[in-house]
Amino acid sequence: MSEPFRPSFGIPDEQFIRGKVPMTKEEIRVITLSKLQLQEDSVILDVGAGTGSISIECALIARRGKVYAIEVVDEGIELIKKNMEKFCVDNIIPIQGMAPKAFEGIRNVDRMIIGGSRGNIAEILQWAEENLNDNGVIVANFITIENLYVFIEALKQKKYKYEITQVTLAKSKVINDITMMQGLNPVFIVKASV
Amino acid sequence: MSEPFRPSFGIPDEQFIRGKVPMTKEEIRVITLSKLQLQEDSVILDVGAGTGSISIECALIARRGKVYAIEVVDEGIELIKKNMEKFCVDNIIPIQGMAPKAFEGIRNVDRMIIGGSRGNIAEILQWAEENLNDNGVIVANFITIENLYVFIEALKQKKYKYEITQVTLAKSKVINDITMMQGLNPVFIVKASV
Amino acid sequence: MSEPFRPSFGIPDEQFIRGKVPMTKEEIRVITLSKLQLQEDSVILDVGAGTGSISIECALIARRGKVYAIEVVDEGIELIKKNMEKFCVDNIIPIQGMAPKAFEGIRNVDRMIIGGSRGNIAEILQWAEENLNDNGVIVANFITIENLYVFIEALKQKKYKYEITQVTLAKSKVINDITMMQGLNPVFIVKASV
Amino acid sequence: MSEPFRPSFGIPDEQFIRGKVPMTKEEIRVITLSKLQLQEDSVILDVGAGTGSISIECALIARRGKVYAIEVVDEGIELIKKNMEKFCVDNIIPIQGMAPKAFEGIRNVDRMIIGGSRGNIAEILQWAEENLNDNGVIVANFITIENLYVFIEALKQKKYKYEITQVTLAKSKVINDITMMQGLNPVFIVKASV
Repeated sequence: MSEPFRPSFGIPDEQFIRGKVPMTKEEIRVITLSKLQLQEDSVILDVGAGTGSISIECALIARRGKVYAIEVVDEGIELIKKNMEKFCVDNIIPIQGMAPKAFEGIRNVDRMIIGGSRGNIAEILQWAEENLNDNGVIVANFITIENLYVFIEALKQKKYKYEITQVTLAKSKVINDITMMQGLNPVFIVKASV
Repeated sequence: MSEPFRPSFGIPDEQFIRGKVPMTKEEIRVITLSKLQLQEDSVILDVGAGTGSISIECALIARRGKVYAIEVVDEGIELIKKNMEKFCVDNIIPIQGMAPKAFEGIRNVDRMIIGGSRGNIAEILQWAEENLNDNGVIVANFITIENLYVFIEALKQKKYKYEITQVTLAKSKVINDITMMQGLNPVFIVKASV
Repeated sequence: MSEPFRPSFGIPDEQFIRGKVPMTKEEIRVITLSKLQLQEDSVILDVGAGTGSISIECALIARRGKVYAIEVVDEGIELIKKNMEKFCVDNIIPIQGMAPKAFEGIRNVDRMIIGGSRGNIAEILQWAEENLNDNGVIVANFITIENLYVFIEALKQKKYKYEITQVTLAKSKVINDITMMQGLNPVFIVKASV
Repeated sequence: MSEPFRPSFGIPDEQFIRGKVPMTKEEIRVITLSKLQLQEDSVILDVGAGTGSISIECALIARRGKVYAIEVVDEGIELIKKNMEKFCVDNIIPIQGMAPKAFEGIRNVDRMIIGGSRGNIAEILQWAEENLNDNGVIVANFITIENLYVFIEALKQKKYKYEITQVTLAKSKVINDITMMQGLNPVFIVKASV
């Protein structure tokens, strides 16, 4: 039986098994991944992993490292497991729970992804301060003004350096050979490092 | 002597050796790369390679493949060679010349990148029709309305499927702990396949 | 009986009587209006008037001038008339028909708005060449790459000067005191003058 | 002597007398104006008036009303006066000083524009609560995340309704008949009302 085609990175959205769980769009995902500055042996903590789409890409790039995929919703955990199977990935450890409680026992993290914080950003950053390795990198995605602000204020207090990239996408819809551009919701991608 | 840090992919702009040759911004570069759907053994043709930033990333991902980097400007060819050395990459073949003449002898290409076409889009696509492998993918970047249009019209004539993603970025500039967002020029990224 | 509140300009979208006819968003409408450089006595030709939202605003500003509102769809013509009544405007002349045939008898136009051209851009510009007054201004809105291109190519041939403003909007949606930004479709606004 | 051409509204940027004082771009200005929902007799308070470009447009629309133009910088006050003269406007009252101290004696304001707050947003909103007329409208422009956030948090506390429109513009630059799009800095426009 032939395996489905799989690129070295940049898995299109439609190849992931999705439910009703919201999924980061592929362009946002690859910018997030590139900001993470992954290495083959990186240990990664994906907070609010959703369908696992970012975790899967991380696990494929950090093939000798591992990914802790934190997700609170049942359906999310199921989808992460299904996507691990589909993409033949075994270096993801799905953990159901709320951040930062669900981080218990996790140590020596090189990279953190924050895709959904549910209001406990300050505690998550406190945990990062104690547990993120030197030269660690945190990349977070935001679609709301308030969560973006709270995050960058917390970064300032902890003396992190940060850069924000706001990404606004429009995608073509071709009807009768005429190409209309359709706008997507803008996303703020924050990269932070010590 | 310690090597400089190098991520598995997503090399930041400032790590490339640049001259006055314009360089694709890193966010545009990684979206372009992801649309290419590269594999480890892909053979890639980078038309208008500039500083070689996209060729370098391609060569690192397609580690068992190779990249033909076509560039007409002297300084560009020099920069490509310098960046190959800096990033320890030897599967790029820099070729000085204009497309499609400079393609002579190149066969069995899996992926094409068009970053600068200087008006001969139709001939380049004609060449692609004869030389691009089945399941081939072309990704092109445009910053002008006219070149974008000419390309998608040529795609329609050749019965290619295509999708356009317009990417508009704003980047933070932090002064006295206040974060201003600065706009960049929007880029149209076209992915085409048969 | 009290009249409904009406601003001097900048009528919000929800105040217009709309059907299923697509309507230009208010921010696009006011930028279009400002590019028109209207005066109190301007004679305006609104091609593809839709619900009449732009015609109404023009008629209120050019209070001593008049607006020819060309629309091909029955429902559009009805909506234009209803909105004229609602906003107490009597200096709009609704004309049902296709451009440029529907322009018959119209002369001495100072301003043209092109909101929907259905492919006969070249003929419309030919008509403009013969009938638009000195110092005339044309403002056109596009959401497709092809129509935008065809328009600016026609402008180049007729030796018009032009500027394009691409407007990308995101609007807040507030849920539980959290402000999410939602993207709209980008619009190209072209201003042309001799 | 012939007067320079002046549109009924939508004065192009280049027509204003400018110094080194930053000026709101014309597209942002007209959206701001339209959100204000001005009437002919509106009393308007323009906080951080800069060159006076928004005050001038307001004064022309609210021809039977008046505009208090608050500006702290000497050069700004000079420019406001020069632009009043240029555009033959006499219903602007330029006031040099910091908000809200400079508001002393001002009453019965229908509309407020906040273009530059220098950190005392809370006090300005407190003043508005006491002095803005029923059905009053406040429109504020922001280019930084922090000032935007502080403003909407203050609005929430005062039980204002608000909507945010983020406007991202790209403008054409035509070289040799080729049209490149150049990005501008995005602006957040907030409209608030009780």
